[in-house]
Amino acid sequence: MAKEITTRQENYSQWYNDIVNKAELAESSAVRGCMVIKPYGYAIWEFMHDALDKMFKDTGHVNAYFPLFIPKSFFSKEASHVEGFAKECAVVTHYRLKKNPDGPGIVVDPEAKLEEELIVRPTSETIIWDTYRNWIKSYRDLPILCNQWANVVRWEMRTRLFLRTAEFLWQEGHTAHATREEAMAETERMIGVYADFAEKYMAVPVIRGIKSANERFAGAVETFCIEAMMQDGKALQAGTSHFLGQNFAKAFDVKYLNKENKLEYVWATSWGVSTRLMGALIMAHSDDNGLVLPPKVAPIEVVIVPIYKTDDQQQMVLDYCAQMKQRLETKGLRVKFDDRDTQKPGFKFAEWEMKGVPVRIAAGPRDVENQTVEIARRDTLTKQSISEAEMEDHIIGLLDEIQDSLFNRALEYRKANTHSVDTWDEFKQVIENGGFAYAHWDGTTDTELAIKEETKATLRCIPLDDDYEDGVDVFSGKPSKRRVIFAKAY
Amino acid sequence: MAKEITTRQENYSQWYNDIVNKAELAESSAVRGCMVIKPYGYAIWEFMHDALDKMFKDTGHVNAYFPLFIPKSFFSKEASHVEGFAKECAVVTHYRLKKNPDGPGIVVDPEAKLEEELIVRPTSETIIWDTYRNWIKSYRDLPILCNQWANVVRWEMRTRLFLRTAEFLWQEGHTAHATREEAMAETERMIGVYADFAEKYMAVPVIRGIKSANERFAGAVETFCIEAMMQDGKALQAGTSHFLGQNFAKAFDVKYLNKENKLEYVWATSWGVSTRLMGALIMAHSDDNGLVLPPKVAPIEVVIVPIYKTDDQQQMVLDYCAQMKQRLETKGLRVKFDDRDTQKPGFKFAEWEMKGVPVRIAAGPRDVENQTVEIARRDTLTKQSISEAEMEDHIIGLLDEIQDSLFNRALEYRKANTHSVDTWDEFKQVIENGGFAYAHWDGTTDTELAIKEETKATLRCIPLDDDYEDGVDVFSGKPSKRRVIFAKAY
Repeated sequence: MAKEITTRQENYSQWYNDIVNKAELAESSAVRGCMVIKPYGYAIWEFMHDALDKMFKDTGHVNAYFPLFIPKSFFSKEASHVEGFAKECAVVTHYRLKKNPDGPGIVVDPEAKLEEELIVRPTSETIIWDTYRNWIKSYRDLPILCNQWANVVRWEMRTRLFLRTAEFLWQEGHTAHATREEAMAETERMIGVYADFAEKYMAVPVIRGIKSANERFAGAVETFCIEAMMQDGKALQAGTSHFLGQNFAKAFDVKYLNKENKLEYVWATSWGVSTRLMGALIMAHSDDNGLVLPPKVAPIEVVIVPIYKTDDQQQMVLDYCAQMKQRLETKGLRVKFDDRDTQKPGFKFAEWEMKGVPVRIAAGPRDVENQTVEIARRDTLTKQSISEAEMEDHIIGLLDEIQDSLFNRALEYRKANTHSVDTWDEFKQVIENGGFAYAHWDGTTDTELAIKEETKATLRCIPLDDDYEDGVDVFSGKPSKRRVIFAKAY
Repeated sequence: MAKEITTRQENYSQWYNDIVNKAELAESSAVRGCMVIKPYGYAIWEFMHDALDKMFKDTGHVNAYFPLFIPKSFFSKEASHVEGFAKECAVVTHYRLKKNPDGPGIVVDPEAKLEEELIVRPTSETIIWDTYRNWIKSYRDLPILCNQWANVVRWEMRTRLFLRTAEFLWQEGHTAHATREEAMAETERMIGVYADFAEKYMAVPVIRGIKSANERFAGAVETFCIEAMMQDGKALQAGTSHFLGQNFAKAFDVKYLNKENKLEYVWATSWGVSTRLMGALIMAHSDDNGLVLPPKVAPIEVVIVPIYKTDDQQQMVLDYCAQMKQRLETKGLRVKFDDRDTQKPGFKFAEWEMKGVPVRIAAGPRDVENQTVEIARRDTLTKQSISEAEMEDHIIGLLDEIQDSLFNRALEYRKANTHSVDTWDEFKQVIENGGFAYAHWDGTTDTELAIKEETKATLRCIPLDDDYEDGVDVFSGKPSKRRVIFAKAY
C-alpha cells in the first residue's frame, strides 16, 4: 500500500495529492472546486475545531451565526474591501426553478429574479458590521467578541484539496471595541492564539509577523499573520488577524456613545483560520509512507493490530489485545482495535501507517506468552518490544515525545532552510532551492512586486520581535531598517 | 423588563417573537428570510449540537462534509425528489462581479455565467449519492453511516425566526446499506435517537409516527417523524428519518457486489433535525415572563445575583457569592456570577428570568450572616431559603427536578389537549380550540386533503406502537383500521 504513493523527491505536489487521496482525507466533488471532506479528514478537522473553539472561549469569545448571503451592494461600502473580495464570487440571481416547458428537466424560472443579487459570503465583515450597527449604542455594549464557524466561497480558478478550494470551512472572529488600543490588543492576542494552536496542537512552528501593505487583507489597516514552512521550503500562511481600524464602522455607520456622551466610530478586528490548516498539517509532517499526525489532532492515537495464525492463537491474542484497548481507553487515549479478520497484519500496518496513526501496538502469541507488546512509532518508523505491564505509561510518554519530536523536526527543517541573504544572487539561489530568504527590503510595494515578478517569491511577513538592523535592499539597493521573509508560497 | 412581552393569551405568535427578541436568541438580517443567531441563542444550539453529535457517534456514525452547491441537473435524477425540492431554491448563475462600467458600485459580470446553474443545497441526498457511487464497490464497503452538520437554504416566502427561515442550520445523516432490513432498522433507530434527544434533553415529549404518503419526504419510501405539541395546541414536526429504499441508488447508479458476487442497488436512509428545534424548545416551555430552559440545554444553569446597599456589604456579599460560584463549578455546573455594579438586582432578576436560567441564587448581607441563600426556580417561579452548606446538593437535585418537571408539564399539557374524536363536529371543535385530534382516517390522500382544506389541520402522523382498531373515517365515513393524529401545525 505504502508503495503506491509518489515520493516527495519525485514530485512533491503529486505526493501531497496521493496522501490526501490514500489517507482518505478529502476528494474532489462533482461541483468544480468544491471538495468532499471524508470522514477521516473531517475527524481531524473536528479536533482542530474543538481545540480552537476552546481557546476562543477561554479568551472571552462567544459563537454566533450570520447569514450565508450578502447583498451585493454591501461590498461596495468599504472601498478597499470591494477591490479584494467582490470579484470571484458565487452570485445568486434567482430563487426558483420550474419544470422545463420545452423538454425534460428543470430550468431557472426567469420570473423569480432577485431585485438585488446575493453574494455567497467570501468573508463576513460587511453583513456582520451591518448587524453590529443595531447591537451597539453605547460603550456599555462594547466590546463585542463574536466568532462564527461557517462555510465560505471564493471562486478560485485553480484549486487544490484543502489548500485552495472554492468552498471551504473556517472560523471568522469579528470583534468591536471602544478604542484603538483595545482593538489592536485583540488583534495581537488572536494571532498569538493561532500561533499557540499551530505550535502546540499541530506541531507546526510558525513565524509571527505583519503583512506588507500589498499583502494586507482588503479593508484592514494592519494584518498580522503566522507563516509556516512546508517540506518543499515553500511558505503557507496558516492564519491571519486583522486590525480593521474604523473602516467598517465608517462604511456601516456604527457609532457608540462614549463615557463623555460623545458619538465615536467603533474599532474593529477580524481573524480567521480555515480547512487550509489541514493542508499545512499534512505537508509539514508526512513522509513517503503516508500521513504523519501529531497525537493531539489524531482521531486515533493508538492502533492495536493482533497477529495470529491458528484459531487457538486468534482467541488468545484477541483477548490480550482487547484488555489492552480497555486499559488505554481508561487512561483517556483514543484507541482503535483493528480486529478485522478479513485483512492480514501487513495490510493493516500499511493502512494505519498511511493514515498517520502515531503509535501502533502489535501483539502475537509469543507476546502473550512473554507478556510483551511491540510498539511502533509512526514518526520515526522505529519499533521496540516492551513489557505489557508498563504499556500505558510508556505510550502516554511516547505520545508526548512524538508531539514534541514532530515540532522540533519541523523547526530544525525551517532553520536549515531559512537563510539570511545579502545579495541578489544569494536571494535568487535560496528561492530557487526552496526556502525562506531573510533579507533587507526597502519597504516599497514597487520593489516587492518586482521581486515577485522575477522570482515568484512573495513577501511573507515582517517578523514580529525582530531587531532593527541597518542594511540595503537586496534588489533595489536602497536603505532598509530591517529584514523580512520572502518565499514562494501556497 | 418582563412586562415588555406580550402574553400567550393576548397573542401567542407575538409572544413567541417577543421571547426570541428579548431573550436575545435571534433576529432578522438584512437578507430576506435569513436570520442572525445571536450568541445566547447559538450557545443553546451548541448544547443541542453537542448532545446530538454524541448520540450519533455512540450509534456508530461519523461526520463528513459535502459541497454547498448542487448541479441543477442532479435534482431531475430522482423523479419525486425534484417535485419536492427543485422549486424555491437559491440559484447561483454567475461567478464573478466587476466594477459597474456605467456608474458607481459593482455589477454581475455577464461573461462569468456558469454553464450549468448551481443550486444552494436545500438537502443533500443528490450530491451525497453522487459521491457514494465512488465509495461503494462491494458489500465490504457497507454500511456507510455519515452525518453532516451544515447550512441549507429553502426559499421560504413567509419566514419566522427559527421555525421557518430561508437559511437554517441542521444535520443530515445519509446512510447506505446492503439490505432493506438494515436500512429500515437504521431509519427506526434514528427516529428513536431523535425522540430520546427531544424528551431527555429538550424535555419535550414527542409522538413517534409515520407520515402519510402526502406528507412524506420527496424521494422517500417511508418517513418517520416525531411530533411535539406547542402551548397553543399546534403541532411541530421536530425531526424526520426517511427510509429511501433504492430510489437514490437507482437515480445515481450506486450498486454493490454482494457476497454472491452479484450487483445490487444500495439501500438508503436520511434523517435530520434543524435549528427549528430551537423554536420547539422556546414554545414548549416558556411563559409570560420569558424563556424557560431545561437545564440540560441551558448555557447557564445557575445565576448568582448579589444584593447589597453599602460598600461594606458589597465586598462581603461578593466574596460570599464568589466562593459559591467556585463550589458549584467544581461540581461541574455552568454558573454565571452577575457581579455587574451598573445594574440593580431587580433588573438582573428580570433579565435572567427572561433568558430562562433554570436556577437563580440571590444572597444579601443577612444571608451571609445566617449562612443561607435564596434559591428561585425559573419553571415554577417559586423561592425558598436554604442553608448555604447544603447548596450544591440541593441545586444538583433541583436541576434534575426542573428537567423532569418541565417534561411532565409538557406531557400533561399534551394529554389534556389530545382528544379521541369520532364525529366530524368533534373533530372540528378540537382543531378550532387547538389540540391534537386522534381520529380514524380512511387512508386516502383525498380525504386528508379535504380535511386540510376545511380545517387547516394536517395529518401529523400515524403513531407507532398504536393498537389497530376498527372504525370509520371522521370525514368520509369510510372504514378505517386505526386512528391517526390531525392538528394544525407550524
